[in-house]
Amino acid sequence: MIVKKNFSPFKIWQYIKSPMYFVLVWSFAVWMFFYIFNWKFLNLNFAPVGILGSALAIFVAFRNNSSYARWWEARTIWGGIVNSSRVLARLVITFTDSHSHQPNYEKQRSEDFKKELVKLSIAWVHSLRLHLRNQHDWEQLETFMDEADFQQLISVQNKPNFLQLQIGRKIYGGMANGILGGFDSFQMEGQLLALANYQGGCERIKNTPLPRQYDFFTRMFVLVFSALLPFGVMGFFTNTPNLS
Amino acid sequence: MIVKKNFSPFKIWQYIKSPMYFVLVWSFAVWMFFYIFNWKFLNLNFAPVGILGSALAIFVAFRNNSSYARWWEARTIWGGIVNSSRVLARLVITFTDSHSHQPNYEKQRSEDFKKELVKLSIAWVHSLRLHLRNQHDWEQLETFMDEADFQQLISVQNKPNFLQLQIGRKIYGGMANGILGGFDSFQMEGQLLALANYQGGCERIKNTPLPRQYDFFTRMFVLVFSALLPFGVMGFFTNTPNLS
Amino acid sequence: MIVKKNFSPFKIWQYIKSPMYFVLVWSFAVWMFFYIFNWKFLNLNFAPVGILGSALAIFVAFRNNSSYARWWEARTIWGGIVNSSRVLARLVITFTDSHSHQPNYEKQRSEDFKKELVKLSIAWVHSLRLHLRNQHDWEQLETFMDEADFQQLISVQNKPNFLQLQIGRKIYGGMANGILGGFDSFQMEGQLLALANYQGGCERIKNTPLPRQYDFFTRMFVLVFSALLPFGVMGFFTNTPNLS
Amino acid sequence: MIVKKNFSPFKIWQYIKSPMYFVLVWSFAVWMFFYIFNWKFLNLNFAPVGILGSALAIFVAFRNNSSYARWWEARTIWGGIVNSSRVLARLVITFTDSHSHQPNYEKQRSEDFKKELVKLSIAWVHSLRLHLRNQHDWEQLETFMDEADFQQLISVQNKPNFLQLQIGRKIYGGMANGILGGFDSFQMEGQLLALANYQGGCERIKNTPLPRQYDFFTRMFVLVFSALLPFGVMGFFTNTPNLS
Amino acid sequence: MIVKKNFSPFKIWQYIKSPMYFVLVWSFAVWMFFYIFNWKFLNLNFAPVGILGSALAIFVAFRNNSSYARWWEARTIWGGIVNSSRVLARLVITFTDSHSHQPNYEKQRSEDFKKELVKLSIAWVHSLRLHLRNQHDWEQLETFMDEADFQQLISVQNKPNFLQLQIGRKIYGGMANGILGGFDSFQMEGQLLALANYQGGCERIKNTPLPRQYDFFTRMFVLVFSALLPFGVMGFFTNTPNLS
Repeated sequence: MIVKKNFSPFKIWQYIKSPMYFVLVWSFAVWMFFYIFNWKFLNLNFAPVGILGSALAIFVAFRNNSSYARWWEARTIWGGIVNSSRVLARLVITFTDSHSHQPNYEKQRSEDFKKELVKLSIAWVHSLRLHLRNQHDWEQLETFMDEADFQQLISVQNKPNFLQLQIGRKIYGGMANGILGGFDSFQMEGQLLALANYQGGCERIKNTPLPRQYDFFTRMFVLVFSALLPFGVMGFFTNTPNLS
Repeated sequence: MIVKKNFSPFKIWQYIKSPMYFVLVWSFAVWMFFYIFNWKFLNLNFAPVGILGSALAIFVAFRNNSSYARWWEARTIWGGIVNSSRVLARLVITFTDSHSHQPNYEKQRSEDFKKELVKLSIAWVHSLRLHLRNQHDWEQLETFMDEADFQQLISVQNKPNFLQLQIGRKIYGGMANGILGGFDSFQMEGQLLALANYQGGCERIKNTPLPRQYDFFTRMFVLVFSALLPFGVMGFFTNTPNLS
Repeated sequence: MIVKKNFSPFKIWQYIKSPMYFVLVWSFAVWMFFYIFNWKFLNLNFAPVGILGSALAIFVAFRNNSSYARWWEARTIWGGIVNSSRVLARLVITFTDSHSHQPNYEKQRSEDFKKELVKLSIAWVHSLRLHLRNQHDWEQLETFMDEADFQQLISVQNKPNFLQLQIGRKIYGGMANGILGGFDSFQMEGQLLALANYQGGCERIKNTPLPRQYDFFTRMFVLVFSALLPFGVMGFFTNTPNLS
Repeated sequence: MIVKKNFSPFKIWQYIKSPMYFVLVWSFAVWMFFYIFNWKFLNLNFAPVGILGSALAIFVAFRNNSSYARWWEARTIWGGIVNSSRVLARLVITFTDSHSHQPNYEKQRSEDFKKELVKLSIAWVHSLRLHLRNQHDWEQLETFMDEADFQQLISVQNKPNFLQLQIGRKIYGGMANGILGGFDSFQMEGQLLALANYQGGCERIKNTPLPRQYDFFTRMFVLVFSALLPFGVMGFFTNTPNLS
Repeated sequence: MIVKKNFSPFKIWQYIKSPMYFVLVWSFAVWMFFYIFNWKFLNLNFAPVGILGSALAIFVAFRNNSSYARWWEARTIWGGIVNSSRVLARLVITFTDSHSHQPNYEKQRSEDFKKELVKLSIAWVHSLRLHLRNQHDWEQLETFMDEADFQQLISVQNKPNFLQLQIGRKIYGGMANGILGGFDSFQMEGQLLALANYQGGCERIKNTPLPRQYDFFTRMFVLVFSALLPFGVMGFFTNTPNLS
């Protein structure tokens, strides 16, 4: 489970404390000007605050929806990587085993081939993680491939891409020496293609934040709204006594 | 029909009674403070309650939409499992029968093959159900496969995955001994792939709840809104008489 | 054209008359209590009605959007059935004719084959219609297939599924006796798969109504809103004279 | 560019003039009753107009969104027809040329074949245009095919469908006489399928307008809203002087 | 990173200064008429401004959502071009190398083939860029292909289309002379198709702006709203003093 069930109020406070302090201090200041120093001209009608609030609502609702859509798309891509990795591993196993009745079948060679491919596809997932996080602990991938492959890997720039190429090469190697055969490569390519598209999706989501305008104007509007709200609300408290 | 047509009001009351009690008790308490103890300073203008209500509306509408989208996606995946299982069963039958004119066709062997594969695909659906519900009544699956397969099944961790692998193996076994032939395995793989993707979709929806922030803040806002509402509404009843 | 252009106001009245009667009678009753019997305590401020109206707006907008999305999805599936049926018929014709240059081509046999398959695909559409409407006039399908097939059809439960199986069998029969050849079955399977998925989509939409909660609470809120509205509006008419 | 950049205010006025006249005349009439004839009982509070306005907003926003979605879907289908036509033409050219090294290659025959197919796919687009517009100027298609095909074309009902069938036949003719070979037909079928689905999408959008209810009730609500608005606004002008 | 993190307030001011000047000057003018020249009849109630504001909110929210959806679709297409180009390059390399064990393999020829195809696919991306921007610096593409291809390229109209055709021809050339073999062309066609569809998507988004009506009416409504707002707000300031 990725999202924890328990939600400590203390942690939430850590998260929201700086805007809360600002709002409390500011509201108190406005109240003081109003009642202590009796600056009645600060009295502001609620309507303009209401208009600003509506504009804000559009912005906030939009951010909310687009953030969630983006998060869910990322989650779906992640789920897709799980699926395609599983299917690729299954295809490697069934396809290799399906040629066990052929004359040139060598059990050890085929078992090594299965292990090698599954390990490379694990390495691909790890390399994608490091790639997306801009981390460079590539030595984590050393256990998943032989020395020659690893030396090549650390010399290239886009590691996940290189591993895809390497998996493709191994598959066609298998086609050539009879470990695989028929349409095996064709079907495994389908999963490699899916994984490549998921990688592209991850990079797209990571490299393209919500346009900064949405962030900037939303923050500015929230700030202005919070700053004006005490005046607007203050207006009510002063009007009501006057009426009675 | 999954959703019952009849909707007992009693059941709805069970579902909503605790917040209803809270709201009734609290409204009565506010009324008492106001009219019995005459604490006029509790008089609150309606406007701040209205602002909170708008903020709440955004949260509630969002939760509503995203819950429904999630539910409908899950329903679509479920429908997809029905479709792909049907198609897989149809392909098993037509493909096996389509080789009945070939010299090495053995009627009994082919009939057993059809039964075995269809049973395994039924077992897959049941295993997915148990897997998603974290239930461990794997003996339910015993009737759908032979003893050797079942012993292997209970020793592995991801049961649905293992059954997919097993179905794949049987298909390639059929390709090898002539029960199937040509592109049969290729087309059946398409349905296995679809089922694997549906399994991934189920796991994704089950394991990834709506982020807890949405739940926490929505509940908190609803609570604060319900607590403030009586003060806001009370304000109207006291203002109107004053005006006349 | 499915949706008629002319929209008789009389028909609309038939559709909306019972809630209209309720609203008119109730409004008149409230007005009578207010002005005739002079029960001034019924005077209710408009604000709580407004809050309820906002809650209602979220529910109504949601129902509106999800109903339309569901209707359009159903329409798209229906359009998809039209497309895939056309394409299947086109493939049957071009594929059968494309083997006319081969030695074992028999014109009459191929023409019969084309007619048989196209008729079965028409039967499939009709069976889907009856299946979705829970109708059992299966004799309507008798003209689309030979007697043996029809006898089998009425003995099985899911008729559209059986017809798909039957179409698949005919195709592989054609592959075996040389009416078809090469990759013909492979490509026709693609359309059978599409039709099977559309059938699943139809069943999903038909069997899964909008969750009853949405219906129940929306109706309840509309009722409460309509019942409170006259009190809220009455409040305005009594306040305004007092002010002048 | 389909949508013109320049937007003449005069043209807009033509488009909106009749509702504008209605609104102006009606507002003036209400003002006259109010101030000239002094019918004070027409004074209506703004709140009910506001409620109607909210209901209207839901309808209008829904129509706006669904119209745009429908327009964009149609635009996407149109773009898809462009793409698939291009790809089909490209495949015709590369596939025909790719067999130029084979013994039975005849340059003139292959060039004619390419021209014939590309012309037929142009004819398909034009026939779809005429078909969707219910126009019958089929002689426009005469230049795109030989006389025999054209005579057949004008005798069938669904012209675009017939042209698809004809393109399919030519392709399998080419497979038979060696102009094409291998998997060429298989890949070209993919584009024919795409075009058939786009045709279905066009027919769906054209034949299925937004349900009439949305249109009827939206127009009625807008009418009622426009008719009530002057009364509601009038109320403000009379209240404010009374207060000062 | 495409979107810069730092957002200079000065640049924002450049962007929003002309509407800001208008709003400031207009608000001051309204204030002057009101307080200096004492034109009390300008006093406008806030309610009509509120209604206009709601209509505006629907338009603005719609524009916001559809602009974002369009931007994100364009971004997804761009990401898709990256993916498909990568996959195409990977397929060129693995497929060419996979035939290295065949008798007619010539290392130099195959290496040249790989380079030529990858260069052409780079040229395609550049040509799409120039094509979409209506730029004509086609000499930028000269380094990516041999002289004969380039001369042909500058003579055709739709450059990206021609390059796709050229890539297709090279692939089938490779199939003919044994550099490629089996189903290689079939799988590479899949990526060419994807790239063709992305090109169509780019052209669609570029050539089809949001319908001008949305732009025109939104601007007009914003203008009218900004012009009326000072009157509406002014009304509050004059009412409140009168009450106290």
